[in-house]
Amino acid sequence: MNLVDLNSDLGESFGAYTIGLDSEVIRHVSSVNVACGYHAGDPLVMAQTVAMAKEAGVAIGAHPGFPDLMGFGRRNMVCSPKEAKAYVQYQMGALLAFTAAAGVKLQHVKPHGALYNMAGKDMDLASAIAEGIAEVDRDVILLGLAGSKMIEAGRAAGLRVASEVFADRAYQADGSLVPRKQPGAVIHDKDEAIRRTVRMVMEGKVTAITGEEVSISADSICVHGDNPSAVEFVKNIRAAMEAQGVKIAPIAAIV
Amino acid sequence: MNLVDLNSDLGESFGAYTIGLDSEVIRHVSSVNVACGYHAGDPLVMAQTVAMAKEAGVAIGAHPGFPDLMGFGRRNMVCSPKEAKAYVQYQMGALLAFTAAAGVKLQHVKPHGALYNMAGKDMDLASAIAEGIAEVDRDVILLGLAGSKMIEAGRAAGLRVASEVFADRAYQADGSLVPRKQPGAVIHDKDEAIRRTVRMVMEGKVTAITGEEVSISADSICVHGDNPSAVEFVKNIRAAMEAQGVKIAPIAAIV
Amino acid sequence: MNLVDLNSDLGESFGAYTIGLDSEVIRHVSSVNVACGYHAGDPLVMAQTVAMAKEAGVAIGAHPGFPDLMGFGRRNMVCSPKEAKAYVQYQMGALLAFTAAAGVKLQHVKPHGALYNMAGKDMDLASAIAEGIAEVDRDVILLGLAGSKMIEAGRAAGLRVASEVFADRAYQADGSLVPRKQPGAVIHDKDEAIRRTVRMVMEGKVTAITGEEVSISADSICVHGDNPSAVEFVKNIRAAMEAQGVKIAPIAAIV
Amino acid sequence: MNLVDLNSDLGESFGAYTIGLDSEVIRHVSSVNVACGYHAGDPLVMAQTVAMAKEAGVAIGAHPGFPDLMGFGRRNMVCSPKEAKAYVQYQMGALLAFTAAAGVKLQHVKPHGALYNMAGKDMDLASAIAEGIAEVDRDVILLGLAGSKMIEAGRAAGLRVASEVFADRAYQADGSLVPRKQPGAVIHDKDEAIRRTVRMVMEGKVTAITGEEVSISADSICVHGDNPSAVEFVKNIRAAMEAQGVKIAPIAAIV
Repeated sequence: MNLVDLNSDLGESFGAYTIGLDSEVIRHVSSVNVACGYHAGDPLVMAQTVAMAKEAGVAIGAHPGFPDLMGFGRRNMVCSPKEAKAYVQYQMGALLAFTAAAGVKLQHVKPHGALYNMAGKDMDLASAIAEGIAEVDRDVILLGLAGSKMIEAGRAAGLRVASEVFADRAYQADGSLVPRKQPGAVIHDKDEAIRRTVRMVMEGKVTAITGEEVSISADSICVHGDNPSAVEFVKNIRAAMEAQGVKIAPIAAIV
Repeated sequence: MNLVDLNSDLGESFGAYTIGLDSEVIRHVSSVNVACGYHAGDPLVMAQTVAMAKEAGVAIGAHPGFPDLMGFGRRNMVCSPKEAKAYVQYQMGALLAFTAAAGVKLQHVKPHGALYNMAGKDMDLASAIAEGIAEVDRDVILLGLAGSKMIEAGRAAGLRVASEVFADRAYQADGSLVPRKQPGAVIHDKDEAIRRTVRMVMEGKVTAITGEEVSISADSICVHGDNPSAVEFVKNIRAAMEAQGVKIAPIAAIV
Repeated sequence: MNLVDLNSDLGESFGAYTIGLDSEVIRHVSSVNVACGYHAGDPLVMAQTVAMAKEAGVAIGAHPGFPDLMGFGRRNMVCSPKEAKAYVQYQMGALLAFTAAAGVKLQHVKPHGALYNMAGKDMDLASAIAEGIAEVDRDVILLGLAGSKMIEAGRAAGLRVASEVFADRAYQADGSLVPRKQPGAVIHDKDEAIRRTVRMVMEGKVTAITGEEVSISADSICVHGDNPSAVEFVKNIRAAMEAQGVKIAPIAAIV
Repeated sequence: MNLVDLNSDLGESFGAYTIGLDSEVIRHVSSVNVACGYHAGDPLVMAQTVAMAKEAGVAIGAHPGFPDLMGFGRRNMVCSPKEAKAYVQYQMGALLAFTAAAGVKLQHVKPHGALYNMAGKDMDLASAIAEGIAEVDRDVILLGLAGSKMIEAGRAAGLRVASEVFADRAYQADGSLVPRKQPGAVIHDKDEAIRRTVRMVMEGKVTAITGEEVSISADSICVHGDNPSAVEFVKNIRAAMEAQGVKIAPIAAIV
């Protein structure tokens, strides 16, 4: 039987600033990535988000990013592998305090934004992150872009890895994402996005923007809870999966 | 046989900024309090400091402070107990990542600066901190000012507690420190400071600034590594203790 | 003819975080207080807010706060007067760059949150802030709580000062605000709030929570744009003023 | 008569952290670049540094950097030109408050570290910075790497520009610096460095690492005050210049 995880970024609020429909989207996903205070999130938000995830019965991951609150961790920064490793360990540890306090397990780590993108293409950076995670807790899963350096580095570090796909993004013939600046990078037709995602999960295939059939591993689908229509899309993708007999389950049940 | 711990704040460097003679003072103490990135320290410094402590064979504690790098955590901030608890858990967790990565144990938590002072007098704040630590790891020791609310709160939370004394500070008749702004608050005569400290450890007594004999619990002595003369003082206090048959040992061997 | 200013805090968004209905509330006020990057706001938001204020034809003030983004500047911090002065000058200068770039004048400075509250009661802090402003630009007006130390300190520093009143807050017999924690501190009946405000402006009187008639100076009324109902209240208070023949005008036209 | 400016980065201390021999090096230079709180410096340090520069009679410049205190502004960050412009204006304005308070003029702006390097090669970034400065104060000089995009962008924005050279760095045949990672990038022989610098100032020529004679404009020489030997080098370079009849003068007297 086919299984797939639905993951969403949560706990991105900070101090007086609220962002994301966390309490809505959490009802439809199986794993959440919790911001750890560097690009978003703060200790109170982390405690609340872990409590919310525990209550909802969804699996919890750390979502470490660059130390760039002003840029929400979305801006590339030239960090050394040593720095990136230390940043990931720091943030992972900070979240581990809250999961320990709540008596729940940390399931995975998924780097955020620019760190995710850069580590997907840079083996040194990816290895530093993977080794950093393995040093702290070898049982934690690394969630990274399907087919990227992060998956390769996670395996090399002896971690279980999970491959992430994007419902609304176009792919290139080599299995990488079409960069956001290029035309066609985002699939705006939601039905089309759902059909593509179902196919990635059930057949392990996606049609590249240039027409080729590409093999892709889809352990987890990244979904968003920024606004009501995003949450609606999560419900629909979940329903479509279940209609095809695909069961939604946390990453740890899959990889 | 008498035992006492010598503890010092370490890992307070940040980015390009270096502070403290860490590699000097670490050779003479039995426990170190490692800054956790809020009032001082950064992930790279934390990793290096844990490695240095492991190498030196000294016990490691977390040294959480207020989120006030510009004020080095020395300025009182009106945080709610809930905020203080979350800040302590966050920082404790962050350091736990580095101790886990290095394969060493976290021995204790000692709040820093203004947080230490405020929690020493405010039972709500002290309880929030103690409960926060206990939720994350019940085996970690709380190191706080001898006779303060922190000691009381630590016991109430089921933690092992260690009482800290200051070699160079005058005490009041109720066992509290003479505030720094008052005349006579600091003992400038180093021999006198050492004699007083030896007596606190061996007899559990200190003479108050107003002449009374005060009972005091002295599990750990706070020493500094800011400058060569501070390091010299640590060597001397250690030698004086040993000359009296007092053995220097980490907190975990004492409480 | 009676004149009064309506002022609102704007530009409190930060990076990816949006807060406040700035483009709504700006249409109904005569002055705006722009966050300067310490407790809220960032350089891009400041540039946009100054552009929006210029376009709307409202007067611009700097809204400096404590360096506490996580607490939105609402937590008391024990800063020295020297620190507070430097923080205000830094933030005031930062905003001056954007007003200079837009070719508009900086009308006033209004300290934010905890800094506003603390300086209202502490003459040393208030003097440091007032002198800090005067050193940078003697023509800028200090907007502070009516009857507070800030008004006194502003006058002593040779600044023009403007007295601020709160529509929805109860006052004590000495003219100070009833602390938020006390019952009755907030006037929830909006019609009552408007009637009281009109009377403060037209008669310079307010009835204290304990029944006394209190003299109060009302150059500017603080209003909010956090949510649609707050914006609605601003419209109503403006209409009520105008119905009584009170003209809404920026502070510089009043003091 | 030949004139050249000696400039040094100052005011890089932060809170409890002290860096740089500011009070030493300031006695030997004609212009200082003052950190503005993003990559280094804080409001108190800025106030003190401006006071020190005024006392020493040296010209003052703003030294804006990326918002990366942990990386000291030395790490490339992918900021949009709009962000970079706003960051420069914010920091320039912040320093302008302190120069206004001290009754001195802001002579120049010199971007710091990674921002300096990136803007030297990227015309969009350089233009954004130059236009940002011009919008705030058209009389302020832009100090940038000789022959770089920053010089070109400054001229296009209508600013006076000053070309900076490095005493201890090797140049390529196109007039750009040999990247630090390449062998020979740094001239370790101090006498050789001084001879090269004298020649750049007096003849407008430097010998490239590949042997070519390169024309170079040398309005200002970057010197350091990190350690006693750096300060000694500044004294020597100054003495060598004066021995050749070159007068040390602030940028504003040169361009």
